[in-house]
Parts: sequence; structure tokens; C-alpha cells
Amino acid sequence: MKRSVVVVLLLSLVFALDAQTAKEEIFSDVHRSGGTYYAYPGPENAKLTPAPAGYHPFYISTYQRHGARFFLDKNDYANPFNTLKKADKLGKLTDLGKKVMHDLGSMLTLLEGRNGELAPLGVVQHAEVAKRMFTNFPEVFKGDAKIEARSTTVIRCILSMMNACLQLKAMNPNLTVKSDASIHDKYYMNSGYKEISALRKAPKVQAFMKKFDEAHTHPARLMGTLFTDRDYVKDSVNSGRFMRRLFTATSNIQSHSDQTTIDLYPIFTKQECYDLWTKNNLRWYIRYGPSPLTQSAMPFNQSRLLENILTTADTCVVNKGNGATMRFGHDTYILPLAALLELGDCGKVITDPDLVANEWRNYKIFMMASNIQLVFYRQLGNPDILVKALLNEHEVTLPVKTDVAPYYHWKDLSSYYRNKLAKFKSNFNWAQSDKSN
Amino acid sequence: MKRSVVVVLLLSLVFALDAQTAKEEIFSDVHRSGGTYYAYPGPENAKLTPAPAGYHPFYISTYQRHGARFFLDKNDYANPFNTLKKADKLGKLTDLGKKVMHDLGSMLTLLEGRNGELAPLGVVQHAEVAKRMFTNFPEVFKGDAKIEARSTTVIRCILSMMNACLQLKAMNPNLTVKSDASIHDKYYMNSGYKEISALRKAPKVQAFMKKFDEAHTHPARLMGTLFTDRDYVKDSVNSGRFMRRLFTATSNIQSHSDQTTIDLYPIFTKQECYDLWTKNNLRWYIRYGPSPLTQSAMPFNQSRLLENILTTADTCVVNKGNGATMRFGHDTYILPLAALLELGDCGKVITDPDLVANEWRNYKIFMMASNIQLVFYRQLGNPDILVKALLNEHEVTLPVKTDVAPYYHWKDLSSYYRNKLAKFKSNFNWAQSDKSN
Repeated sequence: MKRSVVVVLLLSLVFALDAQTAKEEIFSDVHRSGGTYYAYPGPENAKLTPAPAGYHPFYISTYQRHGARFFLDKNDYANPFNTLKKADKLGKLTDLGKKVMHDLGSMLTLLEGRNGELAPLGVVQHAEVAKRMFTNFPEVFKGDAKIEARSTTVIRCILSMMNACLQLKAMNPNLTVKSDASIHDKYYMNSGYKEISALRKAPKVQAFMKKFDEAHTHPARLMGTLFTDRDYVKDSVNSGRFMRRLFTATSNIQSHSDQTTIDLYPIFTKQECYDLWTKNNLRWYIRYGPSPLTQSAMPFNQSRLLENILTTADTCVVNKGNGATMRFGHDTYILPLAALLELGDCGKVITDPDLVANEWRNYKIFMMASNIQLVFYRQLGNPDILVKALLNEHEVTLPVKTDVAPYYHWKDLSSYYRNKLAKFKSNFNWAQSDKSN
Repeated sequence: MKRSVVVVLLLSLVFALDAQTAKEEIFSDVHRSGGTYYAYPGPENAKLTPAPAGYHPFYISTYQRHGARFFLDKNDYANPFNTLKKADKLGKLTDLGKKVMHDLGSMLTLLEGRNGELAPLGVVQHAEVAKRMFTNFPEVFKGDAKIEARSTTVIRCILSMMNACLQLKAMNPNLTVKSDASIHDKYYMNSGYKEISALRKAPKVQAFMKKFDEAHTHPARLMGTLFTDRDYVKDSVNSGRFMRRLFTATSNIQSHSDQTTIDLYPIFTKQECYDLWTKNNLRWYIRYGPSPLTQSAMPFNQSRLLENILTTADTCVVNKGNGATMRFGHDTYILPLAALLELGDCGKVITDPDLVANEWRNYKIFMMASNIQLVFYRQLGNPDILVKALLNEHEVTLPVKTDVAPYYHWKDLSSYYRNKLAKFKSNFNWAQSDKSN
């Protein structure tokens, strides 16, 4: 009797945690508001459900984003830095404003010559993801397991791949690792369809996002803390744009938490972080997610990636061996892929933009070093293959019925996905017949 | 008595082998005529001299060229292919000409989308070099050895680095591997000085090379085997250029020996291969080697690379640990570096161009996956560090006196190199004061 009470209490706690709003989650860890800049902390409270009796994992198929990285463009620091520097020359900065200027200057120095590169933290992240993958599914990596590793041709992805593979090799030196990073694989690793991508450029979509951005940017308080002269700000600073740029710079600094003690989050209130995140989150939902504003077509930009996952899995299911196919890429591919796969809530179509923040949260999907793992299980003498999906190492639901959740029958799932792709292909209004760019 | 006769006979044999001319070496293995395209077969008959008593290796510093690769430019196959195709349409090809055309067509297909990429053979080459490095010097890689691996930002070099490191990690999972491939390191990894590079563009140098090229290209026999119509060849084919291009294509195919059975060497006589090699060899000697025609200045283009080697070695000598600094780059850097280090005959200044072929042979220096290893030794309680140099895994001489050859005293060697660099810097006619490009 006592034990069941404890179980009920614990379950309530779990549901309470699950039921946190985005605002609560961001208020409890403001780094989440970074969205695409959120530095993957590893899975939190992740429990893995044991496989049905007699089933063993033998194959993992992944898409993984590179780890923490340096900014792609030095202007991401330089723009807000220059705004502050100009004001400083005119004596218009508060002490806090001066401190922020110096901090941005230090970040610019750290970035020098390293634009877009994998940060030291990114190396650690990928080694840790690989280590947990091996530890969680040792049967996949045992003996003479074969690892097919593929990266886009972007160096931060290649080095992410290298560090993941080094970790696996250290845990089983007999692993065979075949790696590549070739334009040859671009068509599925990091590509899309121009007809689909064009949807996000529609004037209606642009106007909507601009309006939403402005409605969720409230710079007055922040300006008052950084600048001494309200009239100067009014006349000489584009406050909304400056605040958004400063927030982006702030968000990225978490990728360098092992290189610097600089932290600009304290200059924002948690509410401001939440507000700025909501507009970024919606922007990603519209531009890369299943938003009806872009005809819920964006996820299908990753049709070839899904086809590659289906085809390689079918090949590996037929083969007797064990191993993994690991793909290393970018946010703009892993996010639509998660939606296309309908992992958990990733594919949810939400009409009311104000509801998106609570029903679809980008920081759960595509942070630095984020990863999707499809884990395949088989039973001796049984042709029925099971699969389960991990999104950032948490079990998630898949879009077909199952009697063994969170495990799904591969034959059901693969035919669901193939039908889904075929239906979209025949229904979508393609401008060109070859469907490629 | 008998034994000493055998020893004398064996020694004579060794000296006879050593005394082979370039022509004899190329006639015994025509792949050597590929020069920069020569696919590193691993060390042949390499014997490593045991260290003086009490000395143990603790650090290795390398510069390694990427492994076998696909052509950088599809025109390297397409140009000779198109010459043959045009002739074929006019019915001007022999059966052999048609076969060569089809073979080049197949190579073009193999290359599709893979320009400049590491070939499968390159992966194997780097794993094997790393394996031998570990096996030859296990004390360097034991325990918690630290590997600092650096690559240029070119993907074939990064993947070469990855495969070398995977091999080392498999042999000692406790190794720490720190890797990078950043523009940040370009100044020493793959860079030069514009004032030095400009020397090779001097009209006198260009004219000399053109004349030498033409004097060593004899296309008449080959043309007769590929084309049916001598007048057509005379009117419509630039025979010398065509032959040189066909030879380049032929040379590169050895990088794909595990992917194709195509081999175009049989269409050339060995003498033709040797002739074409002599002109390529001299070209490399003048453009990247210590040729007096380019003021013997070319090796100094790699001054910063040598400075990096000296400085990192000095740091590692001071540290108590063991490990390696491994650098992965290109032919145009490893060749001048070998000359600057004066490894064996690499730095030899030869005035008579006809003597270069026998005294300086590029296929001994910078083939695919070629490597320079400086191996450092220490003795407990003795500050005198010894070093020996391996060029493609063969022991070579270094430019200072020693009482323990092939081991050299690091203090003598490093001060020799530092003086050499300082002297060149102060004597060379720099157009600009900052000495960088």
C-alpha cells in the first residue's frame, strides 16, 4: 500500500515535470532560450525502457548536429559591439554598457580566425553522446561492428564525426569505421528542394514574422541599463534590432563555457529571454517546422534524408552483422527531419501562433550536438524487427500504432514513412519535374 | 672466414641497391615515375637502428601528406579523353586509342562528384603509417600519451588525420587525441611568402622549364599507337601536351588500384615514363626544391612550419609526458620542408639540370601519404636529448655532426635550424617588412 502511494507520488512528479510550460522551463534554465545556440547538456532524467523479451539491439541510424561552435560571422559580435563603441565615444554608456562592450570585444578576440569552427565543448559533447550510445546499446557496437560515418563537407561536422568515432573506437578497438565527407552525399545530407524552400520567402510569411518579432521585442528597460541618454538611443540606436543581436551574441557564448567566464544572460530579465525565444521559436517553426503558414511542407525538404535512412536501414536489417550509420550535419536539417519523422510533438501542426511556444519548443530538438537515434532490435528466428526512437537521448513516440511502446514494428513504420513521402511527392505543386536543387 | 665473405657480399648488394640510378629505379617500378602521384607503398627494406643504451623515444613530430586522392580537376581526365573522342568521331583512332578513350571515360565516371577527395587507398595508407609508427615507437604512445593532431582545412587531409588517429586509438584506447583543422593554423601548416613564391614565376625560370619540358617529351611513337592518321595528329593534336596530360592521368590511376583494374602504364615505354618523370622532377626541384635557379630560396617558404616544429618540440622536451604532434598537409609543403630540414639529399643544391634526376628524386620525398617523422629520445637524468629523422619511414641524415648517427643531439640540430632561418631572414631580399602572405 505504501509503495503504491510512493509510485503515484513519483508519477505525479513526472507528469508535473512534463507539464512544465516553456516559460517555466526557460525560467529554470535560461540557456534554453538560446534555441539553436543551446549547448546540449546531455539527457536529463532519461529512462530507457527495456526491450521486449528476447529482442536485442543490432543497428542504430542517426542524424547528429555538430557540437558547440564558434559564430559563423564575426558581425554577430561586431554589430552590437560597434553600436556600443560608437555610444561610448560620445560618453553615452553606463558602467554596465561599458562592461558589455568589453565582453563583446573579448568574444571577438576569441573568435578571431575561428568563424564557424567546432568549439572545444563540441568535441566533448560528441565524445559523450558516442559514449552513452555505446553504453546504452553495447550489442550494436560489439565484435567486428561496422560503423558507416558520414559528414557534410563542413569541418565542424567532420571533426564532430571524428571525435564520436574516436570514442567508439576506444571502447571497441575492433570496430571498423568507414568515414566520408563528400559533396557526393550532399543530396541527402544537407540539401532541400527549391520549391519547398521558396515557401518561407512568401511576402505573407515575411510580414507575419516581422510583425511577431516586433511584438515580442521590448527593449526599453535594457536600453535604460546600457545607455545614459534616452534621446541618444531614440535618435541613434535601432533598439529592437540591437536587443535581438545582443541576445543572439549572449546565446552563443554558452558554446564557450569552458573557454571564458563571460556570461551576458544577467543583463536580460528572464521574461525578456522568454519573449525573445518565443519569436525565434516561431520563426524556426515557420521556416523549418510543420507550420501551416508554410503549408506544412518544410519537413519534406528532408525527404531524401529520410529515404536514405529507410534504405540503409532496410539493407542493415537484411545483413547479419551489427553496427551503425551515423550522419553528422546541421540544425536546418535535423529540425525538419525530426518533424518529418514525427518524433514526439515535433511534427505537430499548430494554427495559432501564440500556442506554438508551449506545443513545439525548438530547444528540445536541435541544440548544439543534438541527435536523433533510431535503434533497431531483432529476435533470433523472428523476422519482425522492432525500432525505437531517441530524440536527444530521450525516448519519443513514433506516428504508428504499436503494441510494444516505445518500440514500434519496423514494417509498419517504414511503410508509413514511404507512403507519406509518396503522397507528398504526388500532391505538392512542384515547379519543375526533377524535384531537386 | 665464410661468414665475413657473406657479409661482404651482402653489403655489396646493399650498396649496389643504393647506387641504383633513377632510371633503374623507375624501370624496376614504373609507378615511381608518377612523382607526386606515386602511391606510397610503405617503407621498403627499412631497418631502424637501435637507440644508444639507456635512451627511449618519448615524442614524435610529423608532417604527413594526405593519402591517395582523386584528381583535383576532372579536366585532368577530360582533356585527354576529349582529344581522343574528337579523333574517334572522325575515325582516327586505333583499337588501342579507343581502349584508352574508354578507360579515361571510366575514370571520369569514378571521379564524378569526388574531385580532390581522399581515395579508399588513402584511408588504408594512413592507418598503416600510424600502425607502424606505434609499433616502431611504442613508448611514445604508451599510457596517457597526448596526440596533438592538426590538419589543413582540406577534407582529404582531415580524413587522413582521422584515420591515422583512429588507428592509434585502437592500439591504445587511453590516448588523448586533440584535433583541429583551422584557418588559424594556416600560417604554418600550408602557407608561404609571396616574395619567395614569386621567384618561380620569373620569365627566365619559366622559359627554362618550357624548354626542358619539350626536350624531354617525345610523343611520336605513342601517337602512332593511338591514332591511325599521322597527318591528322600533325594538324589537330598538340602531341607534346597531349602526351604529358595522358601521362598525368596515367600516374594518378595508381591512387585507385583498389577501385579499378584500369592501368594505362602499358601504353608508355619505360623510357618514355622516365623521360616524362625527369622533366616533372626538375620542375618540382625548381619550383619547390633547393634549385639555384630559384635562388635556393624555395625551402624557406616553409620557415614558419619549421619554426612550429622547433617550438613545439622544445615544449615537449620540457614536459615530462610522452606523445606526438602530427600535422597533415600537402605535397607543396612537405617537399620544401624536407629540403629545409636537409633530410638526406633533399636539400642538395645541384647546378647542372641534367644531374638532378640522379641526385634528387621527388618520388622518394612526397608521394601520396608521404611522411616526415622526427623521433625524440631521452635518457633518465640526462638533459641531452637525441633525435632521429625518418623520411617515409627510412632513416636519413641530418645536417649537423653527430657521434651517434643516425641519432643527433637536439641542441645542435635546433640551433643549426634556428641560425639557418635567422640568416635567411636577414639576407633575403624581402619586398615587404612583415614577411608574410
